[in-house]
Amino acid sequence: MGKISKATWIWYPGDFEVWLGNRFNNRRTERGGMFPPFWKQDSHWATVEFSKSFILKRSETIFITAEGSYNLMLDGKLLFGQPAELYLKAGEHRLNIKVHNLASPPALFVQGWNVSTDASWLVTYEDKIWIDENGVAHGSGIYVHPGYEDFDTPEQRPSQYCLERKTLTAISVKRVKRGRLYDFGRETFGYLRLKKINGVGTVNIYYGESQEEALDMDHCETLDRVQVSQDDITDLATGKTSELVDEYALPTSKAFRYVYVVAPDQLVGDVEMDYEFTPYNRYRSGKFHCSHNDLNKIWEVGAYTLDLTTREFFLDGIKRDRWTWSGDAIQSYLMNYYLRFDSRCVRRTIRQLRGKDPVTAHVNTIMDYSFYWFKSVYDYYLYTGDLEFVREIYPRMRSLMDYCLERLDENGMAAGQSDDWIFVDWVDFPMPKRGVMCFEQLLLCKALETMKICAVELRSHPQDNPPQGSLGNEDYSADAQKYEKLFRQLLEKTRKVFWSDKHHAFMHNLERGHVNEMVTKFPNMFAILYGYADAKEKQQILEHVMLNDKIEKITTPYMRFYELEALCEMGMQEYVAREIKDYWGGMIRQGATSFWEKYIPEEQGVQHLAMYGRPYGKSLCHAWGASPVYLLGKYFLGVRPTSPGYATFEIKPADYSILGDTEGAVPTPYGKIVLKFRRGQISLKFEGGQGELVLSCSRRPESNIGEFFPDKQMKGCYRLALTEPKQEYIIDYC
Amino acid sequence: MGKISKATWIWYPGDFEVWLGNRFNNRRTERGGMFPPFWKQDSHWATVEFSKSFILKRSETIFITAEGSYNLMLDGKLLFGQPAELYLKAGEHRLNIKVHNLASPPALFVQGWNVSTDASWLVTYEDKIWIDENGVAHGSGIYVHPGYEDFDTPEQRPSQYCLERKTLTAISVKRVKRGRLYDFGRETFGYLRLKKINGVGTVNIYYGESQEEALDMDHCETLDRVQVSQDDITDLATGKTSELVDEYALPTSKAFRYVYVVAPDQLVGDVEMDYEFTPYNRYRSGKFHCSHNDLNKIWEVGAYTLDLTTREFFLDGIKRDRWTWSGDAIQSYLMNYYLRFDSRCVRRTIRQLRGKDPVTAHVNTIMDYSFYWFKSVYDYYLYTGDLEFVREIYPRMRSLMDYCLERLDENGMAAGQSDDWIFVDWVDFPMPKRGVMCFEQLLLCKALETMKICAVELRSHPQDNPPQGSLGNEDYSADAQKYEKLFRQLLEKTRKVFWSDKHHAFMHNLERGHVNEMVTKFPNMFAILYGYADAKEKQQILEHVMLNDKIEKITTPYMRFYELEALCEMGMQEYVAREIKDYWGGMIRQGATSFWEKYIPEEQGVQHLAMYGRPYGKSLCHAWGASPVYLLGKYFLGVRPTSPGYATFEIKPADYSILGDTEGAVPTPYGKIVLKFRRGQISLKFEGGQGELVLSCSRRPESNIGEFFPDKQMKGCYRLALTEPKQEYIIDYC
Repeated sequence: MGKISKATWIWYPGDFEVWLGNRFNNRRTERGGMFPPFWKQDSHWATVEFSKSFILKRSETIFITAEGSYNLMLDGKLLFGQPAELYLKAGEHRLNIKVHNLASPPALFVQGWNVSTDASWLVTYEDKIWIDENGVAHGSGIYVHPGYEDFDTPEQRPSQYCLERKTLTAISVKRVKRGRLYDFGRETFGYLRLKKINGVGTVNIYYGESQEEALDMDHCETLDRVQVSQDDITDLATGKTSELVDEYALPTSKAFRYVYVVAPDQLVGDVEMDYEFTPYNRYRSGKFHCSHNDLNKIWEVGAYTLDLTTREFFLDGIKRDRWTWSGDAIQSYLMNYYLRFDSRCVRRTIRQLRGKDPVTAHVNTIMDYSFYWFKSVYDYYLYTGDLEFVREIYPRMRSLMDYCLERLDENGMAAGQSDDWIFVDWVDFPMPKRGVMCFEQLLLCKALETMKICAVELRSHPQDNPPQGSLGNEDYSADAQKYEKLFRQLLEKTRKVFWSDKHHAFMHNLERGHVNEMVTKFPNMFAILYGYADAKEKQQILEHVMLNDKIEKITTPYMRFYELEALCEMGMQEYVAREIKDYWGGMIRQGATSFWEKYIPEEQGVQHLAMYGRPYGKSLCHAWGASPVYLLGKYFLGVRPTSPGYATFEIKPADYSILGDTEGAVPTPYGKIVLKFRRGQISLKFEGGQGELVLSCSRRPESNIGEFFPDKQMKGCYRLALTEPKQEYIIDYC
Repeated sequence: MGKISKATWIWYPGDFEVWLGNRFNNRRTERGGMFPPFWKQDSHWATVEFSKSFILKRSETIFITAEGSYNLMLDGKLLFGQPAELYLKAGEHRLNIKVHNLASPPALFVQGWNVSTDASWLVTYEDKIWIDENGVAHGSGIYVHPGYEDFDTPEQRPSQYCLERKTLTAISVKRVKRGRLYDFGRETFGYLRLKKINGVGTVNIYYGESQEEALDMDHCETLDRVQVSQDDITDLATGKTSELVDEYALPTSKAFRYVYVVAPDQLVGDVEMDYEFTPYNRYRSGKFHCSHNDLNKIWEVGAYTLDLTTREFFLDGIKRDRWTWSGDAIQSYLMNYYLRFDSRCVRRTIRQLRGKDPVTAHVNTIMDYSFYWFKSVYDYYLYTGDLEFVREIYPRMRSLMDYCLERLDENGMAAGQSDDWIFVDWVDFPMPKRGVMCFEQLLLCKALETMKICAVELRSHPQDNPPQGSLGNEDYSADAQKYEKLFRQLLEKTRKVFWSDKHHAFMHNLERGHVNEMVTKFPNMFAILYGYADAKEKQQILEHVMLNDKIEKITTPYMRFYELEALCEMGMQEYVAREIKDYWGGMIRQGATSFWEKYIPEEQGVQHLAMYGRPYGKSLCHAWGASPVYLLGKYFLGVRPTSPGYATFEIKPADYSILGDTEGAVPTPYGKIVLKFRRGQISLKFEGGQGELVLSCSRRPESNIGEFFPDKQMKGCYRLALTEPKQEYIIDYC
């Protein structure tokens, strides 16, 4: 008897995310009112068919569990009822199982010795059976491989999925007026639990990311009200009633550090919270520790900020908006590749943001956010090497790109239409966002380039037995040509219209035939990052824009991400380390325990809490605040993949003088790359793939394994091929 | 205090049908296995926003009920929780209520003295709020008026909607082998109920539209199995378990006349059934009674057939498929206009068949069925005058037409692609269905003509305060031109390619440049019906095709509908009456209590039960069998609208010699038109609109009201303007 085959729950790919995304995005509240997103929320397919053909050497019994009502066709014959088990004789068979479920995605779990649900099954939402004039039935449906994660037992139903929880207690409590203020010590997230309930009355709960917010009952952003009666307890926000017990956990999670609980005396004896989190494996996680304690602290707060915002999906902020936003998410993904390498959460968020056809608006209604979405697929492929995900999502990349292309202006450029949100950044100076913005064209260029790269990769790696209705190599070839051409044309036009030798920079926008000569960092830093400026232009941009005090400062960590990354790309690590210490260090000096949505160092006291015209409108735990995790991993530890999934990679550490003694780790699909930098010595170890260590030094370094060669282009630069996984490399240099 | 405003449940238009359609279409079973349709099943929008702006003269309290979790924004301010009531001060207000629900459509019921949910509210699935560079929020969503029916109290939740039931008992029971055979006297539909349950064991239930089917345990199309244990009763098909009581109603409805119940002795004492039906008002229904009893019986059996198949939607057959099929439904609609005038069921079925964008296949995957769908909207408008429904559905007509047009061949003609089902009819002779079929072109012509007519009508009746994002008059004008042109071009091409002076008929199809000179009734009768043949051609078609014995016979009531209608249009009522007596009378003589899916008079005994290679595959209660209800109303009572909603209508009774003394009624939006024909005398009464009575007779008839005028074109034809509603007209003629 062989080993039993591994079974997993399967569903229509993307449907789990669509469904979970609806639950997720509808959880935001504002002062007790539900606050759903502004864009279309899709639904999973109500009825899908799963199928599999196979040959059994010996007979076996399979066990079937489904989420939804289902039928089962064996070898073309429909069976009675919804069989929970089925005996299969040896021989050739075909199983077709249709599952119907409106409330959660139709999902299937089949377990046998040989026949089990896994990635090899097929699934369709439309089998399109039709009968020709000879009475012959045809099935012309479009089939794909199923979606799945790691729900690997019949009991682990996808619809029951939730994050983990653990109890946390407050570090202090004090009486304030008619209530008690609890401090949980740092920013946190979860479900408040009322303990030792005794009596009747209303409990008012005010949450605060700051003490000021929690105590400001009229203006705090989130609150709860609970009615305790003789018989039961009611959450007044949702109307949910439950049995009266002496302990009650609120049904909706909140973000807070402080909680102000106002209730009749003795009604609530104490509070605790159920901290809710995405589990991760610390042995597979990124690490960073250098000789500058302020940077270490920044990295830790960044990591905590990213952990708090890494949930069912990557969200923007835990207090608000608690939604998936594409521009925020692409940064979370990149940070994540240097912290937890949670590929599942990346896939989920990419799928969820894209949703279903038809496309009726840009992703999150924001034009830039559609463009980022494309690049996020490329980034994912580069870091993970997971081409099957690209294959799955490619048809939806195509239809979103169709939407983008249909909306171009008469010159083939992306101008915001009246129902498009053009975001770029939250800026405090007047900056036109209409017409043809250089910034948006550069993002669209990257999106088109991504389409081309994905089409080329898919063409180069054809599927064995492609499912009926799949795109074929002729489609990918045609696409590769089409998108390459569109990309080249747009890039050429953009450079021609916007590059100014006079200003040594890309200009801002084009409106009614007139180029606005305003210079901002936005398009210019993306021209560096995306490689759309040549070496000479980059230097001009650096001098005249990036390091020019007359250019408006960026005031969100969101765009500081790209600003500092562009500077790192230009070799300005020392400058960037100082900026990180100033800016992120500045937040910590203001008491931040997680990084903020926006930070203007010049502001004072409660000014730091306000945004959107509301005294506590600002999110104090915003994913885009965590970028030092990415910057320190990629540009200081210096690790990056140079081909998909770290099949090849580069390690190019920052100069020792900047961080001093440093230890770190970067996760990859093979396992961690572990690094230790000492004066004159580097030790490192990697688990797979083939790397290259790049060092700048006065003479050729020496390694215990292999040999350094001088770079052919760059003087004083030496390269060592890293060919021996699992060995400790020890490199001496000076 | 004024009268309280009428409140009704509202939802996103079409969503109720999408949701109800999923429940409906997934109820088909085959020998106890679930049998969902082959095409995409859509879902309702998970989150929608309802809104209304209004001015209150005095303050009032409104009461809010929703299906789903919801929020409430009053004058732009989000309120706490999910308020069940809200006090509104006098003055100007705006309410925005978002409702989220995955399991059933988000729906809202608001009741106040003045402010109540009704057709005037707005709804969107995407409010698309976005913020410009000046911090100003814009809402660029597309808004429409809500869907609603007659759920007019908070308790009548749309998700709880179901048909009515009443108990029926069998007319006879007899012991057959180890079981008992119950006969319910005629075809019926509902839930079998086991009574006087006593003991434990398995109850096997075999349903039959015929006695043969019920007794054939191995081949009957539907069956049930129930397990009675010490503690509970389990329906083995669905796995649903319920408490043990002495009476048990099966959870799934079935179609049957006979039920064969096989169970251990004494386990089931008796059975009854809960007949499930759509209620109708008999005082608003069509009627027909003439001096030929066989025709009266045919009309009654037709009416019963249509009643059985008029359910949440119009379905094809009650045994199978129990699905909505567009080609079947358009006939049900037309019959319905002469029987119950259930406009709600027509709207529902049209919406459900169309579903949501994107269009991924033809309606029911059948090309002809997409084309019929368009015409069904025109028919609905003509009979009901309900232009608001046309306005609602028009955007989906457009997107379905886009799909149809994208798939035309290089000559702009509709050729079936490899994933299209080309149905036409079930035929028993070899008939090619590929290439460019004349039949399909004529249907597409009618679809294009419908698009044009609808665009013109919508342009002519602009909305007051069109919701943001609605189509405007410039859109309708452009569409009217576009579709008129496409229609003219296609009709011209079709006539040129297919009309044969040699054969006096339209030829069959065009494949690889070659016209197949096969002649069938299909395209030719549609050329008559749709007015695409001129008077001379019609006469040729009549002689050389319709009345030509060498042309293959039509063997389904489905296409006999159009065949006999075309003959009626050619004035062949006498011939048609004979055909109805022969063909439908033939089924009755075979014992039919409802009309069949197919009928070949030459077949014998159990041959009549078989179809699709299965001994009881044929449906014995098929909606398309009921066409005499339509033909007798439209061409013998002679009533038809000549402008939308019977604003004008024509009454052109068949010659007295054909039916003799006849009484009948035809429902209209104004009420019934009641008719009584005696030799030399007609009496009639109508409730609204303006009609014309058309009589052929040897001299000018006389009326008690108004005066007949001779027709200017047709000799021996006289016309009387019917201008006095609610008066009894008495006309003497000879």
